[in-house]
Amino acid sequence: MSELRGACIIGQSGGPTAVINASALGVIRTALDTSCITRVFGAANGIRGVLDDKLYDMDQEDAAELDLLKFTPSSALGSCRYKLADPDKDDTDYKRILEIFQKYDVRYFFYNGGNDSMDTCNKISKYMQKAGYECRIMGVPKTIDNDLNGTDHCPGFASAAKYIATSCAEVWQDAHVYDTGMVTVVEIMGRHAGWLAGSAALASLTGCGPDLVYLPEVDFDMEEFLADVKEIYNRTGKCMVAASEGIHYADGRFVSEAETSATDGFGHAQLGGLAVMLAERIKKETGAKVRGIELSLLQRCASHAASKTDIDEAFQAGKTAVEAAVSGTTDKMVAFQCSRDGGYKCEMVLQPLDIVANIEKKVPREWINAAGNGIEQPFIDYVLPLIQGDAAAPTEYSLPRFAKLKKIVAK
Amino acid sequence: MSELRGACIIGQSGGPTAVINASALGVIRTALDTSCITRVFGAANGIRGVLDDKLYDMDQEDAAELDLLKFTPSSALGSCRYKLADPDKDDTDYKRILEIFQKYDVRYFFYNGGNDSMDTCNKISKYMQKAGYECRIMGVPKTIDNDLNGTDHCPGFASAAKYIATSCAEVWQDAHVYDTGMVTVVEIMGRHAGWLAGSAALASLTGCGPDLVYLPEVDFDMEEFLADVKEIYNRTGKCMVAASEGIHYADGRFVSEAETSATDGFGHAQLGGLAVMLAERIKKETGAKVRGIELSLLQRCASHAASKTDIDEAFQAGKTAVEAAVSGTTDKMVAFQCSRDGGYKCEMVLQPLDIVANIEKKVPREWINAAGNGIEQPFIDYVLPLIQGDAAAPTEYSLPRFAKLKKIVAK
Repeated sequence: MSELRGACIIGQSGGPTAVINASALGVIRTALDTSCITRVFGAANGIRGVLDDKLYDMDQEDAAELDLLKFTPSSALGSCRYKLADPDKDDTDYKRILEIFQKYDVRYFFYNGGNDSMDTCNKISKYMQKAGYECRIMGVPKTIDNDLNGTDHCPGFASAAKYIATSCAEVWQDAHVYDTGMVTVVEIMGRHAGWLAGSAALASLTGCGPDLVYLPEVDFDMEEFLADVKEIYNRTGKCMVAASEGIHYADGRFVSEAETSATDGFGHAQLGGLAVMLAERIKKETGAKVRGIELSLLQRCASHAASKTDIDEAFQAGKTAVEAAVSGTTDKMVAFQCSRDGGYKCEMVLQPLDIVANIEKKVPREWINAAGNGIEQPFIDYVLPLIQGDAAAPTEYSLPRFAKLKKIVAK
Repeated sequence: MSELRGACIIGQSGGPTAVINASALGVIRTALDTSCITRVFGAANGIRGVLDDKLYDMDQEDAAELDLLKFTPSSALGSCRYKLADPDKDDTDYKRILEIFQKYDVRYFFYNGGNDSMDTCNKISKYMQKAGYECRIMGVPKTIDNDLNGTDHCPGFASAAKYIATSCAEVWQDAHVYDTGMVTVVEIMGRHAGWLAGSAALASLTGCGPDLVYLPEVDFDMEEFLADVKEIYNRTGKCMVAASEGIHYADGRFVSEAETSATDGFGHAQLGGLAVMLAERIKKETGAKVRGIELSLLQRCASHAASKTDIDEAFQAGKTAVEAAVSGTTDKMVAFQCSRDGGYKCEMVLQPLDIVANIEKKVPREWINAAGNGIEQPFIDYVLPLIQGDAAAPTEYSLPRFAKLKKIVAK
């Protein structure tokens, strides 16, 4: 494979995680150190930055500040939720992207995101191939939802899982302090896949885990739920529930949606508020003191409690993407191939973008208990190695010291 | 002062904090090491444990497990919200307490709690004096609300403040990631005093702080609030608000109560839900995407992010209480006297229980800006030294390793 000289662009897309910037750093640092990559650009707000010709010049950033990306949550370059059209129907955006690639002689494009981002990546890659423009295009995975196909797990998931488990253990302590009854419901992100809600069960390893865990992989039944809570509450005086925001009835309606019927501006169900709603139902049913807690954005940006394993793997994913592209690879997403027997090992592999995009990987049904209100040991064995190690994130004034980038727009 | 030989009881009361157990450890460890203290009991669920003759024998606990109390949130001995009657009207409880004290030859009583607990402590102390039963009674302060009179600050406050500031900084990163508009409202505990909500402003030291901060010390005006948010949102496309759950209108009605009119079983306003409510109002007014985040129990039990200064001071407060009692002191609460000029120093002093009980210390008006929507530098200078240092809490499986006490009930 002949050496391909040219500039590179790194873009970030979709919802933030605690470690997506570690992946960006993996790309940026490796690209800056690679001689055939002539310039390194960060796209402002993902693919929007390419369309708007707003590219940050990463060569002008201070190296020490860049290094802090490893411990800076959310997407430092900015994100977007922009969906590219089907190029066969409308290729306006693609022509514009090609134009910008040509303008800056971009020969490497790295896109750091989740499901939709891999779809974007895939579409751009196919378009460039068709247009005969040589550009190596690589996906770098991230998503707290852990629902990408073709990879053992996704960077960002483990840090959220660790935060969720830690918070549940702490809340358990708090919720068990009085000699009076108390039911606590913790609402956890995850619209279609229950990886995060299931991770609440890790808290049981501390002796302080939820009594009941509900994932969207199993149809929710309100009567059974209330009976389960009542049984535990009547027996022990306490009950702690962890529930995915995406739990739904057998007919597909989200539980939160069915009860509140709130929709966002586009008519989509706006999730959230589930914890409070379930808590109110329990209160009506049992008379118990209740508390609904929504972990909200906290669970995806808590870099102070990130998993070191997650940070390191996220960085490695970015690094691998650049190394693979420079070696001639294109049209692939970096993925993790892991073994857990005889100690955890994680190997970087490459997966075709086609098999990643638009498929949601869910928790296997057999990893959830038969009653659908708890998880089984294989789930724990799967997640536990991923949350190991503490971030040891740098601080200033004993508060997080995030990267402060100059973000100088390239001319 | 002659040596007083006898048993001691330590009880915990009121809402949990991340470090109240560090104070309990300060008491227990020091008492165990003090020869004139013959036995060390932990009251199950505060004063209720005394009334119910349910005392845990601390001598039977494993020393290493006890040490973990330094990093275990919530009240390990259990808490209560039991209010003792006025002894002049009904002395039933006091007679019972005296009976238990006599049964176990209790000569030292340490009560670890907030405002109401100091009142309990004070009433018991006065009753024992009147009854001619020699018992040295000491209050050990705790409250995340930081509203105890007679002390520079309260153990538990700083760890909550640190968690709040850290979380706000992280959420800021998340809330600024898209190129579309976004308004975030973070709801923080504190019914009458704004120490915790004000601490959100510490996040500004990271470059990622709230734009607007509302404390209960200033009457809230909905129209002004919406105008403030709109101005910032229109100018920058984002706005982050930190608000105390206890903000109220000029007529005294809590904002959350006035809008939702929810009450608890006793007819008291049930606070909470403020963030979501304010976010909805902003959405209606501006059309902005909004997010309401309630820090809920998380802020008071996040031992994984506790302040080392807070832990150390909490421990020291417990230790000092025992040392002072053994030296002949009674009827006092351990308090902090601090200086900040030329480096932070914190000295343990003793305050009469009378001046502590039933007075709520509020944020000085001049520490809040004139508009009542932000805080001034003296507030930062006050809080910042308190949050210094990381807990370095022990972990197992990279999850919190909390103390596991045997809690053997004394015969």
